[in-house]
Amino acid sequence: MRSPPLPYHSPRNGDATPPHHHHHHHRQYQSTVSVQKLRRFNWLILVLRLAAFCFSLASSIFSATNSRGPSAPHWYDFEALRYLFAANAMVALYSLLETAASVWEILKNATLFPETFQLWFDFSHDQVFAYILMSAESAGTALARTLKGSATCAASSAFCIQSDIAIALGFAGFLFLAFSSLLSGFRVVCFLISGSRFPH
Amino acid sequence: MRSPPLPYHSPRNGDATPPHHHHHHHRQYQSTVSVQKLRRFNWLILVLRLAAFCFSLASSIFSATNSRGPSAPHWYDFEALRYLFAANAMVALYSLLETAASVWEILKNATLFPETFQLWFDFSHDQVFAYILMSAESAGTALARTLKGSATCAASSAFCIQSDIAIALGFAGFLFLAFSSLLSGFRVVCFLISGSRFPH
Repeated sequence: MRSPPLPYHSPRNGDATPPHHHHHHHRQYQSTVSVQKLRRFNWLILVLRLAAFCFSLASSIFSATNSRGPSAPHWYDFEALRYLFAANAMVALYSLLETAASVWEILKNATLFPETFQLWFDFSHDQVFAYILMSAESAGTALARTLKGSATCAASSAFCIQSDIAIALGFAGFLFLAFSSLLSGFRVVCFLISGSRFPH
Repeated sequence: MRSPPLPYHSPRNGDATPPHHHHHHHRQYQSTVSVQKLRRFNWLILVLRLAAFCFSLASSIFSATNSRGPSAPHWYDFEALRYLFAANAMVALYSLLETAASVWEILKNATLFPETFQLWFDFSHDQVFAYILMSAESAGTALARTLKGSATCAASSAFCIQSDIAIALGFAGFLFLAFSSLLSGFRVVCFLISGSRFPH
């Protein structure tokens, strides 16, 4: 992760320029490096957002379609499965918005909202949603393991299998969200320290 | 959180020193500010570590003593309560070690282990343990809510109440751990960007 510090007097073409131009040249060089890094960083965030969106959407679809006829168990009869669906649907919606914001940032080279707001918004929501998603998946897992030995799974094993799939997809979504929360945290601290989304 | 940027030529006593001393003086001034900030930061971390330790220890004690006679339910018969105990005990042990490391850092003004290792160790473990603790508390909550209507709680309501207390204490521990993971994340990014645990 850690890039080597740029030497103050880096030998470049035009090293013979007068001393009072050095600083300017150096800045230009640095900002070019920053822009490249920022671009790669933004692409990584976009990919993570998109992955989190896909997995949490798939999980919420698997959750919400988990009903097997009028006599069989329904997902909305179980508190933990309702929580699982709500958390995944929320994260899917949030990730979609963040994907859009990320695409905007790549295209326009600026954040969708004012930078300070956008960075803090991203970071805080990533953190909170990552914990909520982890919580929902764990609650779902605890329920699924309790159901395993019960009459519900004996009567309709497809119901339990579909719950398991929804939980597994949600965990995958969590991983991507947790990783993007690390990156957005990095951006916030960069901004706090150096006043920019990316270190110079 | 954001401190105003220090002016490069800050007017101080000895402003009449020759130009080649400016940079040195500036650094000294900055490092004094940093040391004060670092001290306050370290005290905050110490308090958070201690609080996380107390709550997770209390939670694991409440979990582990939740057995009511030979015929009544035992905590170790329930997977989620075993997970709850294990996660809280782990976090209590980890927080104790981190508290010791934090005290060391305040007394000696240096990290216990080499700085890079210490910062990454703290941050990664904070992150992982915070997610694990959230997961364990949620699994415990899901079980507790399933038990609520069952014969277990009807037979021994004290068992269910004690589980609830253990879970609530664990959630409090989680909050402190999650907050210290934010601070240790801040320290890591500071270190990555400026090569120091705290911004100059």
